[in-house]
Amino acid sequence: MDRRSFLTKGAVGGAAAGAASLAAPAYAQGNRTLTMVTTWGRGLAGVHDAAERVANNITAMSDGQLTVDLRAAGELVGAFEVFDAVTAGQADMYHGADYYFVGQHPGYAFFTAVPFGMTAQELANWYYHDGGMELHDELGQIFGLKSFLGGNTGAQAGGWFRQEINSPEDFNGLRFRMPGLGGQALGKLGASVQNLPGAEVYQALSSGAIDGTEWIGPWADEKAGFQEVTQNYYTAGFHEPGAGLSVATNRDVFDELTPAQQKIIEIAAAEAHQWNLAQFLSENGAALQRLQSSGVNLLEFPDEVWNAFGRASQEVLDENMGDELFARIHESVMDSMNSSSNWITRSEGAYRSQRDRVLG
Amino acid sequence: MDRRSFLTKGAVGGAAAGAASLAAPAYAQGNRTLTMVTTWGRGLAGVHDAAERVANNITAMSDGQLTVDLRAAGELVGAFEVFDAVTAGQADMYHGADYYFVGQHPGYAFFTAVPFGMTAQELANWYYHDGGMELHDELGQIFGLKSFLGGNTGAQAGGWFRQEINSPEDFNGLRFRMPGLGGQALGKLGASVQNLPGAEVYQALSSGAIDGTEWIGPWADEKAGFQEVTQNYYTAGFHEPGAGLSVATNRDVFDELTPAQQKIIEIAAAEAHQWNLAQFLSENGAALQRLQSSGVNLLEFPDEVWNAFGRASQEVLDENMGDELFARIHESVMDSMNSSSNWITRSEGAYRSQRDRVLG
Repeated sequence: MDRRSFLTKGAVGGAAAGAASLAAPAYAQGNRTLTMVTTWGRGLAGVHDAAERVANNITAMSDGQLTVDLRAAGELVGAFEVFDAVTAGQADMYHGADYYFVGQHPGYAFFTAVPFGMTAQELANWYYHDGGMELHDELGQIFGLKSFLGGNTGAQAGGWFRQEINSPEDFNGLRFRMPGLGGQALGKLGASVQNLPGAEVYQALSSGAIDGTEWIGPWADEKAGFQEVTQNYYTAGFHEPGAGLSVATNRDVFDELTPAQQKIIEIAAAEAHQWNLAQFLSENGAALQRLQSSGVNLLEFPDEVWNAFGRASQEVLDENMGDELFARIHESVMDSMNSSSNWITRSEGAYRSQRDRVLG
Repeated sequence: MDRRSFLTKGAVGGAAAGAASLAAPAYAQGNRTLTMVTTWGRGLAGVHDAAERVANNITAMSDGQLTVDLRAAGELVGAFEVFDAVTAGQADMYHGADYYFVGQHPGYAFFTAVPFGMTAQELANWYYHDGGMELHDELGQIFGLKSFLGGNTGAQAGGWFRQEINSPEDFNGLRFRMPGLGGQALGKLGASVQNLPGAEVYQALSSGAIDGTEWIGPWADEKAGFQEVTQNYYTAGFHEPGAGLSVATNRDVFDELTPAQQKIIEIAAAEAHQWNLAQFLSENGAALQRLQSSGVNLLEFPDEVWNAFGRASQEVLDENMGDELFARIHESVMDSMNSSSNWITRSEGAYRSQRDRVLG
């Protein structure tokens, strides 16, 4: 029952109605619509689903107190304008990939992915238990945002190449689409890095305007149709080993909410991180089977190329270390990753290798 | 503000108070305490934390409508009595490991872990996207429960052994503590499997009454003190590659709740699955470093032993296939795991191997 019908039924007399208004508790006052803008086109597989899940679960759990009105990219503001729209109060919250906002602060890269960085699970370990959430909050305080992780694509594929890659030199002059710090690292190898909008990538690859592209993973890549242009698919990539997505609320708006409403936003976002990662892994598995059946070659970069990726990634990270907060987040990330990684390798990693070997 | 203070402040006259009572909406009627019993001793690292997180988040998000009163094992009913207590309505909900209830139905094993089964991530993929939650619900309908995953320990360690294991024959006559289907599999190798309560395991190992034990992982194992008895620690195990924990609510109680309250329970449980897994991985990583520093030998079972684990695990699963629902859950699990596993190996798995190699 919403506030309007409650007041109508309670208004047996003027005095009673007045008293009810004065005494209205926070949950009755609080019915409000929160506008959520996103960096995703409406219906974009996986990433828009994560935004929609957060929006719907906030609405459902708050029992009508909060209604999240989801506006996909371009419906209220453009994809890359969501950060400024929320800091300015033009929208109440955004769902997006925070590495789009490295121009606002380079530290935002860590809350999506950095080259040679954390897997999705390592990101969760760091975020929820090793100080990551607190550092996200520290960044948010600079811009008037309250941020939470709210989605994850899992490890992104190495990408589609018109010619196979046999050595680091093959990147010299290669026209390749890759955004973010990963793209900067490929630039160190001599690649001509293109930052094309998603809608233009297929056409650029099929016309030969670019020699290759990374996108997300088998599910989204298959929908984009890259397998129609080339059969060379590198499954493991160095650039986004577990790309987190974020939900950020204008801090003044967040502070006005009740503690219960704030907790609902926090938990809805966290749940979407897990749900979305599982969605990508489930869908990617099925799509990879279809791509293999259709004749796509699943390839891995040679060790020598991975060595070059590693050196170039370190150079790119080092270039940002002059920023104190970037350096502090980097140190926190590395401490957490180094601490949790050995156990993961020795337990689940060794188990999966043995299971694959034994079950064939 | 709770219902009591609202009614007090609103009660300017008898008529108004009466009207307010009659018009009281669901959220004002619904203030109730839900008793949650658990299979964990109060304060037991990780697993009790997961129960507490679910309880606290339900209470916080429902803004006083629901208060979850957490009763650890032994405080209201014993650890293994929680299932029957909730089905009988003696308690409203439980938090526990569902494989303790294979006596009620063998299919419950899959919602914690089975030997050679799913990792924590594969469990999430299956549960949230490939039909697992629906099968959990089907099991729950038999017993009048509404169940959700609500925690995960991650991959459990192979365990502590007084003597190193060099061949499958070394298990012949070995007195070893391991519960569940994993223990049954070790029995096929000739082990004398002991199902000791947790409180007795350290004493049994140190006195020589048993030759070895598995427990959970470095964090919990270190607290138990097994490293004081033996230095032989097998990190990867076959028996619980990602042990899920569950939150189950009495179905009549669940059906009486509002849709918002039901959604709060569902999302609080799911969030705890991710939070708890990240907690175990974070804490296990730090504990493994300490154990290594103190001189513990980190070992892996030889391939030949893993082959024997695989054969024995299949035998144990096959013995339960006469149950139609068990067989159907098993098929659903294998379909999901086979579909998602290849992508995980080729993307994140290959990435982690290269990262370990390149970064050293």
